[in-house]
Amino acid sequence: MEIPTYEDMLAAHDRIRPHIHRTPILTSSYLNELTGARLFFKCENFQNAGAFKVRGASNAVFGLSEAEAARGVCTHSSGNHALSLSYAAGRRGIPCHVVMPRTAPQAKKDAVRGYGGIITECEPSTSSREAVFADVQAATGGNFVHPYNDPRVIAGQGTCSRELLEQTDGLDMVVAPIGGGGMISGTCLTLSSLAPEVKIIAAEPEMADDAYRSFKAGHIIADDAPVTVADGLKVPLKELTWHFVSNHVTDIMTASEAEIIAAMKLTWQRMKIVIEASCSVPLAIILKNKDAFAGKRVGVIITGGNVDLDALPW
Amino acid sequence: MEIPTYEDMLAAHDRIRPHIHRTPILTSSYLNELTGARLFFKCENFQNAGAFKVRGASNAVFGLSEAEAARGVCTHSSGNHALSLSYAAGRRGIPCHVVMPRTAPQAKKDAVRGYGGIITECEPSTSSREAVFADVQAATGGNFVHPYNDPRVIAGQGTCSRELLEQTDGLDMVVAPIGGGGMISGTCLTLSSLAPEVKIIAAEPEMADDAYRSFKAGHIIADDAPVTVADGLKVPLKELTWHFVSNHVTDIMTASEAEIIAAMKLTWQRMKIVIEASCSVPLAIILKNKDAFAGKRVGVIITGGNVDLDALPW
Repeated sequence: MEIPTYEDMLAAHDRIRPHIHRTPILTSSYLNELTGARLFFKCENFQNAGAFKVRGASNAVFGLSEAEAARGVCTHSSGNHALSLSYAAGRRGIPCHVVMPRTAPQAKKDAVRGYGGIITECEPSTSSREAVFADVQAATGGNFVHPYNDPRVIAGQGTCSRELLEQTDGLDMVVAPIGGGGMISGTCLTLSSLAPEVKIIAAEPEMADDAYRSFKAGHIIADDAPVTVADGLKVPLKELTWHFVSNHVTDIMTASEAEIIAAMKLTWQRMKIVIEASCSVPLAIILKNKDAFAGKRVGVIITGGNVDLDALPW
Repeated sequence: MEIPTYEDMLAAHDRIRPHIHRTPILTSSYLNELTGARLFFKCENFQNAGAFKVRGASNAVFGLSEAEAARGVCTHSSGNHALSLSYAAGRRGIPCHVVMPRTAPQAKKDAVRGYGGIITECEPSTSSREAVFADVQAATGGNFVHPYNDPRVIAGQGTCSRELLEQTDGLDMVVAPIGGGGMISGTCLTLSSLAPEVKIIAAEPEMADDAYRSFKAGHIIADDAPVTVADGLKVPLKELTWHFVSNHVTDIMTASEAEIIAAMKLTWQRMKIVIEASCSVPLAIILKNKDAFAGKRVGVIITGGNVDLDALPW
C-alpha cells in the first residue's frame, strides 16, 4: 500500500492545473446567520465534468508514461468518477473503458459517451461488476484508476483543500462528505501538512453510515448496498482511505435523508447553485449541530452538481 | 421626465456599494462551443435578495434625505422589486410598504416579510392595484419607488454593466432580458458613455413581445396581462425606459416558451446555477440566432435566481 505524500499532492497540482478550474468560494450571509458560523463553500460543482473527481482522474491520466497511456485507462463507476476519467482521458486523447451497471441513469451513460468514454455494461451486483471489469481490463490492458483507493487519485483530490486554504483567510474546520473517502483522504493529506490545526469533519448519511461505524469501531465496516438519496456516498472505505480517516479525521457526523434533502433545497434556494444530495450532507450536519460550528470559520466542500433535474428529491 | 445621466450612475455605484455584491462572471466552455460565441455571464442571481433589482432599489432608498426616509418607501410589485425594496429599506431601517396581489406566491410574500416589508394585498387587476396603492401611499406618505420607470432605479441598474465591463476584457455585445426595461435602460445608460461600440440586444418572450413590437413601431405598445413562463417580463415599457430603448438598443429578439424553458434547463444542467426563466431568454435567443453571435464576445446578464423549486417548468 503506497501512501501518497504532501509532495505527491504538490506534483499533482502542477500536473492537473491546465485541466481543472480553480473553482470559486461562495458565501451566504443568510446561511451564516442561520448557523452562527462563517461558511466558505468551495464550489466543485463548477468543476470540469461537474465534480471534484476530475482532479484525481486527471492526475492519474496525465501521470501515465507514454507507453502506459497508449493502452488507455479503465474503471468501474456509475457516477462522477466515470465522467471525470472519461473527460481526462479525452483531454489526453487516450481510450477510457468504463464498466457501468445496466441500470445506471441514461443521462449518466450519455454524458460518459459524450466525453468519449467506452461503456461496457454489467449487472447491478458486485460479482457481475468485478467479473466484467476483469474481462475489460484483460482485453484492453488499460491502467486501472480506482475511484478512490488509489494514491494518484487521493493526491489529486488533495489539491482542492490547498486551493480552499489559499482562497480563505484562515479556517478552523473543513467539512466534506464521506463515501469511499477519496475527498476526505485528500483533505487529510493536504491539511495535515499545510494547516494541521484545522479540524476535519466528515459528513455521512445515516442510511449509509459505514464510515461512521468504522471510525467508532476502529476498523473498516462495509455495508452491502445501502440506500440513500446521497448516491455518491454509498461505497465503503478501503485500506488507503481508511489510513487517512483513522489517522487524521476529527469526527464523523451523520444526517437523515430528510435533513439532507432540506439542506440541498435550502442551498439551491438561498445560494442559487445546483448541488448534489451528496454534498448537502455537510450543511445538514452543520445545521443539526450548530453548537459545534458556531463562531468558527468553516470550509465546506461542495463536491459536485450532477443532478437529474427531472427527478428532484423534494 | 428626468433622464438619469452617466454621473447619476457613478454616484449610484458609490452609494450602493456597501449594500450589494460585486457578483462574479461565470463562463462555460460547453456553451461557448455550442454557440460559437464567447459568453460572459454576469451572475446577478447571486446578488442580495436574489436579483439585480436590489441595485436600483438601494440607490433610491439610500438617496433619500433623512426627512424623506423617515416616511419610508412604498411600491407595488409581485416580484423581485418587492423583495429588493424591502431588503434595502430594512438595511436603512425605514418602513417599506408593498402592494401585492392576493394571488402572489406565498413564498414571495414570506420573503418580503422576512426582509421586514409590510404587505397590503390587492386583487390581481390593474384597477385594484392602483386604487389600493393610492390609499397606502396617502396613508403612509412613503416615497414611491417605481420598479423601473424611475431615474434612481435606472441609474442603479446601470451599475451592473459597469462591473461587467470591468470584469471582462472587452465585449462586442451585451444581451439582457427586457420586461419593463429597467435593466436594459441601465445598460444603455452605462454603455452609451463607457463603451458606445458595444451592441445592446434585448431578449423578450414571444408571448410578451410588446417591447419588440414597440421597437419596430417606434412608439410604446402595451399589452394587457400577457402570459409567459418568464414572469418577470410581463410588464410594459414606460416613458423613461422607452427613451433608452428607442435611442440605444441595437435590436430586440424573441424566443418561444419552449426555447426559454430549454435554455433555462440547459443552464442549470451545464453551469450548475439556479436562474429564473426570465433570464434564460438571452441564452435562448443566442441559441436560435447563432450567426448573429458567433465569434463575438458577449456579456449575458443573468438577472435573478428567485425560483419556486416546487413548480419547475419542465
